[in-house]
Amino acid sequence: MKTVIGIDLGGTNVRVAKVTEQGEVLQELKSPSYGMEGPEKVVSNIISLIEQLDGYKDCVGIGIGVPGPVDTVNKVMKLSSNLNGFTDFPMAAKIEEATGIPTFLDNDANCAGLAEAIIGAGKLFPIVYYTTISTGIGGALIVNGKLVSGKNGYAGEVGNLIVDPYRDPFNNLNPGASESEASGRALIRKGQAVFGEKVQSAKDVFDLYEQGDEEAIKLVDQMTTDLAIMFSHVALVTDPHIFVLGGGVMKSKAVWMPKMIEKFKSFVHPGMREVIFTEAECSEPGIMGAAMLPISNGL
Amino acid sequence: MKTVIGIDLGGTNVRVAKVTEQGEVLQELKSPSYGMEGPEKVVSNIISLIEQLDGYKDCVGIGIGVPGPVDTVNKVMKLSSNLNGFTDFPMAAKIEEATGIPTFLDNDANCAGLAEAIIGAGKLFPIVYYTTISTGIGGALIVNGKLVSGKNGYAGEVGNLIVDPYRDPFNNLNPGASESEASGRALIRKGQAVFGEKVQSAKDVFDLYEQGDEEAIKLVDQMTTDLAIMFSHVALVTDPHIFVLGGGVMKSKAVWMPKMIEKFKSFVHPGMREVIFTEAECSEPGIMGAAMLPISNGL
Repeated sequence: MKTVIGIDLGGTNVRVAKVTEQGEVLQELKSPSYGMEGPEKVVSNIISLIEQLDGYKDCVGIGIGVPGPVDTVNKVMKLSSNLNGFTDFPMAAKIEEATGIPTFLDNDANCAGLAEAIIGAGKLFPIVYYTTISTGIGGALIVNGKLVSGKNGYAGEVGNLIVDPYRDPFNNLNPGASESEASGRALIRKGQAVFGEKVQSAKDVFDLYEQGDEEAIKLVDQMTTDLAIMFSHVALVTDPHIFVLGGGVMKSKAVWMPKMIEKFKSFVHPGMREVIFTEAECSEPGIMGAAMLPISNGL
Repeated sequence: MKTVIGIDLGGTNVRVAKVTEQGEVLQELKSPSYGMEGPEKVVSNIISLIEQLDGYKDCVGIGIGVPGPVDTVNKVMKLSSNLNGFTDFPMAAKIEEATGIPTFLDNDANCAGLAEAIIGAGKLFPIVYYTTISTGIGGALIVNGKLVSGKNGYAGEVGNLIVDPYRDPFNNLNPGASESEASGRALIRKGQAVFGEKVQSAKDVFDLYEQGDEEAIKLVDQMTTDLAIMFSHVALVTDPHIFVLGGGVMKSKAVWMPKMIEKFKSFVHPGMREVIFTEAECSEPGIMGAAMLPISNGL
């Protein structure tokens, strides 16, 4: 059976796993990523972790998921806020050179989407749009098992989609960007503006909603409209077979998702209203998706 | 040299051409389409036109462009307002059966986009987003020379993208849909509301703009903002290498396109601002794109 190496590189930790092409983890190693100590240190650490995997030389490919947009043709990050000095650094080339194994690089949200498209909730669907609604909002387009990452890895930057151009901008995003209006962090900001420090999480707002609090109902109502508009943008551009949704805000899906889907239907053509919205399934989408990168690239 | 048959089927006319894989038209026939006389009549007419092409049996494939969304897997139209009775009618299967040549079907805007991606302005670019700004607004996503038509052929329905949710809805589109706000027809509607019957075309508004008319300046200014937001939606979902723009409103591109591109840059991440916007090049994108369908499908 074919095996691959998946690497989930974050600002704090890095995980390296040997995985079968069906997505079974055979061995997994974890270490600090040394993300702020420069790319040479990060990469030499990753190479030593790879070399600790049993029979690593038998793996057909290596995939790396990183926190930021990636130029997948040149295999470099185009923006790296959590990994010092990684913009345009040839990490994949260096790992490929050291190990002799073809190495691929993509954004971590794209990797999670790829995992869902190949072995998760989107399996068997030709066009999968993955969206994570968590502190932020990100996405990934997967067509026939291959990521469409975009020219500079910005395909899937759905958190910056404008849902209402008249609202205030936050965090260098557009005015009325979906992430500023409907992410977990947005719900906390809006909840605290109404309820003060009583709100510490998105769940607190959903709890107030379920208790029938009128202000919380308004907030959740606005959030479902904003998400519906965001998903209509994605649908009208890509018409996917399935939307796979991940991220922390999905824990409260029973509260907001049915309303959001109803509103979504009003924003798309009648023939598009039966698209499936479903929850992500993979337990470790980051590392699993990274492992799927070589497979998706034909290895 | 490989040859293919391209068919451009409209409500009024149908054109059938034998084309080389490089896009050279060898022979072209035109006839009424009999679009309102039912699918059997339309199809038997098309088959007789095909049989009039010299050496049609040597062609490796047939592609048909139709006015409406298409389920490209089952090769049927999903909505047909200009062709009576074509929804779910197995036109491609019937033509394939009669001719013995593999037959493919797609939306006409998708075909135009495919032509631009394979032999036109988008040639050599991995991700091409084609947009036509004319009476209406439509689009097409082409990844590595293949159309991403969507589950029901609605990928590219960018005319229904919301650019401002607070405006009035028109023609069964969303409130603030780009087509209702920034198409040629929209500009005529808005121009007539200000200037009356003096405005008969989008060009009339652009002419007033160039004469320095303040009301016309406001209208064009709003149009460029609306188009910039629409294109930001597309870019944040697909991050294309190039936007190829066609349609009648491009005749006045010198007036509005540079301003639109400047505004677009403000609505996307810094790393996305250098995407190319260029004009469509194909002289007959409809029939050429239909002819490219079999090539794009691997024939």
